[in-house]
Amino acid sequence: MSILIVGTVAFDAIETPFGKTDKIVGGAATYIGLSASFFSNNLNLVSVVGDDFPKQAIKILEQHNIDTKGLQIKEGEKTFFWSGKYHNDMNTRDTIETQLNVLETFDPIVPKEYQNSEFLMLGNLMPSVQKKVLDQMKTRPKLIVLDTMNFWMDHFLEDLKEALKEVDVLTINDEEARQLSGEYSLVKAAKKILETGPNYLVIKKGEHGALLFNKEEVFFAPALPLEDVFDPTGAGDCFAGGFIGYLEKTKDISFENMKRAVIHGSVMASFCVEKFGTERIKELTHQDVENRLQEFIDLVQFERSLTKS
Amino acid sequence: MSILIVGTVAFDAIETPFGKTDKIVGGAATYIGLSASFFSNNLNLVSVVGDDFPKQAIKILEQHNIDTKGLQIKEGEKTFFWSGKYHNDMNTRDTIETQLNVLETFDPIVPKEYQNSEFLMLGNLMPSVQKKVLDQMKTRPKLIVLDTMNFWMDHFLEDLKEALKEVDVLTINDEEARQLSGEYSLVKAAKKILETGPNYLVIKKGEHGALLFNKEEVFFAPALPLEDVFDPTGAGDCFAGGFIGYLEKTKDISFENMKRAVIHGSVMASFCVEKFGTERIKELTHQDVENRLQEFIDLVQFERSLTKS
Repeated sequence: MSILIVGTVAFDAIETPFGKTDKIVGGAATYIGLSASFFSNNLNLVSVVGDDFPKQAIKILEQHNIDTKGLQIKEGEKTFFWSGKYHNDMNTRDTIETQLNVLETFDPIVPKEYQNSEFLMLGNLMPSVQKKVLDQMKTRPKLIVLDTMNFWMDHFLEDLKEALKEVDVLTINDEEARQLSGEYSLVKAAKKILETGPNYLVIKKGEHGALLFNKEEVFFAPALPLEDVFDPTGAGDCFAGGFIGYLEKTKDISFENMKRAVIHGSVMASFCVEKFGTERIKELTHQDVENRLQEFIDLVQFERSLTKS
Repeated sequence: MSILIVGTVAFDAIETPFGKTDKIVGGAATYIGLSASFFSNNLNLVSVVGDDFPKQAIKILEQHNIDTKGLQIKEGEKTFFWSGKYHNDMNTRDTIETQLNVLETFDPIVPKEYQNSEFLMLGNLMPSVQKKVLDQMKTRPKLIVLDTMNFWMDHFLEDLKEALKEVDVLTINDEEARQLSGEYSLVKAAKKILETGPNYLVIKKGEHGALLFNKEEVFFAPALPLEDVFDPTGAGDCFAGGFIGYLEKTKDISFENMKRAVIHGSVMASFCVEKFGTERIKELTHQDVENRLQEFIDLVQFERSLTKS
């Protein structure tokens, strides 16, 4: 089994109330890959960078079991760059600068060896690029997860709707679910969105946890209450990486197992926000992940004698 | 065992995006009492109304096992009245009018028969009034729960701090926890607040659930995702009623049992918001409560095989 991850590999410059970084390595596919590597050792990457992207950063991806054959390196071009500043509540941010660079003309090429990947994670990217990847798959993956954001809803809604028809799981945040459905209630929003293609919807609510819906059921995973949220960048991608990584590892895409995958995604997101960029995710041990899983269990589980009340 | 409930019995006029009421019966003690009555049949009430308060409404309280000997009826005076309008997000509201009326001179008198109540629920009221009730208890209750709000923090902080020294459980919302502690992080806020008196802190986050803290542990209960939140008035009070009602019923004030009490509180709050005022809470059956408990269990529980990942 293997997971094909498609998304940005990029530079970020981040400012939060806790500090400020220079250009550091980021991008959806970077976070997804590092996070998924805790569960899966067969990860394939399709992305693009410029020749300014450090070889050392690519090496770190490879050390995390991520095959980089599908990572295009564009000579004489520059890597995608984003800089942003988080507000005090850490839930909102302003984009200071976006340099598309290599992303502007990104034409994803899925290497032959990747075209039968059983799991496909379409990280946040222009919907038409996500669609191009879908079209190159030789066999229909067992599970396709798509992440997106409000920007694509604002400007490329029809392309996004086309892509959604072909995916199994959509992951978006609460505001995006409201925008996509036109419904304020997340329960109503989920119902509407699940009529447009995906069979599963994950609504990410940041510090308020995540909801997993199918057409009949709903599951909720909290976020771990943390003393400090240092930098939220990449949390949603780490969630997606933990989610699909766990599903690939356990080879079980039932709703029951997706609940556990959501918990694993939340665990990885909870680490991500503890330091700047990929710093915390890169240094994690399997024991760290195990311990935090137990914290999540302790946080929500109670004895069932409840039902006898 | 019995629960003494202190709080307002009042008239409310409510406007939400779903509609508008005339003067209807409300008040913290009303909601707490109706909610607690699903678990406990030994409820005592200390409150005050004017002679404009309908006898029929008092009868409904009595039909819910609430003893009203401690409800003062002030001849020639008017009942406390509040009117407010909720914004579209249902999380924020504007107060349109507050008529203190009988509350202005409220001097709580705890009847002799109530002075040994094992559970004491101090609903949201002026802290000095809450303190007066505490001072009239002949034996120290097994558990004292205090609810309060930002208004008292703004204007009567010292009185509130005095009252807090004597209580076991404080229930407030997330913004109030931040205000009371001066900490944005709820984990840090809880630590600080638990140094000022209470051994347990419940932070209510509305549609985002509730957190229960003691000095070492934390437990999280989600809110049930609902299609529509019709009217949030009284949800926090119904939570408190379910919480203390369940604790009195089970006669167990351990942290483990408080987790279950938080779930029961959340169940009662989830009903409260489905109709205007006390309408939904009044008509509930025990079967409704059982069914919803199961919905909460389904919402958060997952198979523990998780730990073997």
